[in-house]
Amino acid sequence: MQSKIIIDTDPGVDDALAIEFALNAKELEVIGLSTVFGNVDVDLATINALRLLDLAKRADVPIARGTAHPLEGRFSGGVPFVHGDDGQGNTWQPKSQLQAIEQAAVDFIIEQIKRYPNEVTIAALGPLTNLALALQKAPEVQDLVKAVVLMGGNPFGPGNATPAGEANILGDPRAADIVFGARWQVTMIPLDVTHTIMLHENRLKNITKKSKRALHQHVMSAYIFYQDFYKRANNISGSYIHDSSVIAYLLHPDLFTSVPYPIRVEINDGISKGKTWPALQNVEDDNQQALLPWRNRPKVNVCTAVDSTRMLDVLEAHLY
Amino acid sequence: MQSKIIIDTDPGVDDALAIEFALNAKELEVIGLSTVFGNVDVDLATINALRLLDLAKRADVPIARGTAHPLEGRFSGGVPFVHGDDGQGNTWQPKSQLQAIEQAAVDFIIEQIKRYPNEVTIAALGPLTNLALALQKAPEVQDLVKAVVLMGGNPFGPGNATPAGEANILGDPRAADIVFGARWQVTMIPLDVTHTIMLHENRLKNITKKSKRALHQHVMSAYIFYQDFYKRANNISGSYIHDSSVIAYLLHPDLFTSVPYPIRVEINDGISKGKTWPALQNVEDDNQQALLPWRNRPKVNVCTAVDSTRMLDVLEAHLY
Repeated sequence: MQSKIIIDTDPGVDDALAIEFALNAKELEVIGLSTVFGNVDVDLATINALRLLDLAKRADVPIARGTAHPLEGRFSGGVPFVHGDDGQGNTWQPKSQLQAIEQAAVDFIIEQIKRYPNEVTIAALGPLTNLALALQKAPEVQDLVKAVVLMGGNPFGPGNATPAGEANILGDPRAADIVFGARWQVTMIPLDVTHTIMLHENRLKNITKKSKRALHQHVMSAYIFYQDFYKRANNISGSYIHDSSVIAYLLHPDLFTSVPYPIRVEINDGISKGKTWPALQNVEDDNQQALLPWRNRPKVNVCTAVDSTRMLDVLEAHLY
Repeated sequence: MQSKIIIDTDPGVDDALAIEFALNAKELEVIGLSTVFGNVDVDLATINALRLLDLAKRADVPIARGTAHPLEGRFSGGVPFVHGDDGQGNTWQPKSQLQAIEQAAVDFIIEQIKRYPNEVTIAALGPLTNLALALQKAPEVQDLVKAVVLMGGNPFGPGNATPAGEANILGDPRAADIVFGARWQVTMIPLDVTHTIMLHENRLKNITKKSKRALHQHVMSAYIFYQDFYKRANNISGSYIHDSSVIAYLLHPDLFTSVPYPIRVEINDGISKGKTWPALQNVEDDNQQALLPWRNRPKVNVCTAVDSTRMLDVLEAHLY
């Protein structure tokens, strides 16, 4: 039986690859996409998501436009130097004629979770605002969802957007803290892990040649720009596939090692904003008053390592 | 020629071992101790420091009492469950008749640095308040000191006092940010490194037997309590020697690997307080506005690894 998933996304080049990956995975039934600000603003994220489904000839998959701003404050602008001014590696493809559904992302997510109790997994590839809004509007979803699997955070390593913060969590730290505090099962695939999965530029070239499908060719074109960013910024001969790790986890959780920790997110302004802090100590120890913010929090399933070789093989096997 | 050092300290059990280590090292001339709140309040730190010098028959070494509170706020209490209610592993030894000098630690530090230009190294084993006060009162010391070597911070790993904060830096984050921002040469031996140096309980037993000297026997007795804390809290059959790594660095810097990074400290209240953040990215990159707080900051020599086997051998060789 296929697993029903909703992809919550801000495409974004690595989001685009993750969407291609998910649409090609026979084990997954993508029952919808919801969009969110993040790599680009939510309008552009929605335009890009619609184009991806159009190129995939998957007009049957609904797209619900999500929130434009974090729970507090305003969207601070995307990262055009990473994803291009169009969010798709400056490929400047025409808009699709497809339209988003009328329903807002938060309502779509709530409706789908309630329609298929214990069947829907949320694959969250951007800031977690839509998910936090769903929890606030319909707290019962935390008991009805199958799971939440997200790419984000850096419990053990440095951030990418700032020394402290990973881009998805930093996009809405307050929403993330709500999502990590709800009693649904959350799996977090952090930057610490996705930075160990490098898609080499030579492999990208080979993968590009292997399929002429429109979606594949578009995603591969977008990847060139994204890869150039990593060459400039990180001096590596390839790029990270961040968001695709969520799809890989859904297919093969055994590729990942994980450890349960309660997680709090730094929500205050300052140099630490967006940092995801695990409590490694015993939060019940009365000598450790500093651990009170972590006490009584659910444990997040934090991925700490991945078999990156097999993960890239799994990804590639689903691209043609 | 001996190197002149001032040990700024809050004894504390691991401080006591570091002081024994330093006093026994022929390569070092301990020209004074300055005390600070931290593991215990500054009165107790001063009492303990005086006793250590008395037991070592080193009444010639002056002790200057330091600051009782951080630059902002009040000393929040020590950690008696780590160091004992007496700060010396509940050994409850009588007070020494020795007295601290009249001069305050900040003035003693300034005077000594100016008296011996480019000769004095500060070995900082506690919160950095005395050093920050010296910088504020006499900014010229940053050009006259030989070096500052400190135990503190956790640029790459978790904290010990909280998930974010290491105890010495958390004791006065604002002072630490001042010390890391001055143009003197700072070497930081963080928790990330000191947590890789474990003194096994069997080795402690052997070391205890090897010398009958009063200071040695006192320090070893105190270590039993401290070791028990680590057994309870970390489930290890031994203890960390944190502060002694500073003395080892002064004798054999080649034991350590280090990398220069600009460092900022989270000074705001909240779950991230006291975290030491290195900027790994290029702080001059105009795409990286988030790095502005790190721009134009001096680079701190951050130790990232140690040859712990050799380090423990060096320590042991200086204990009898």
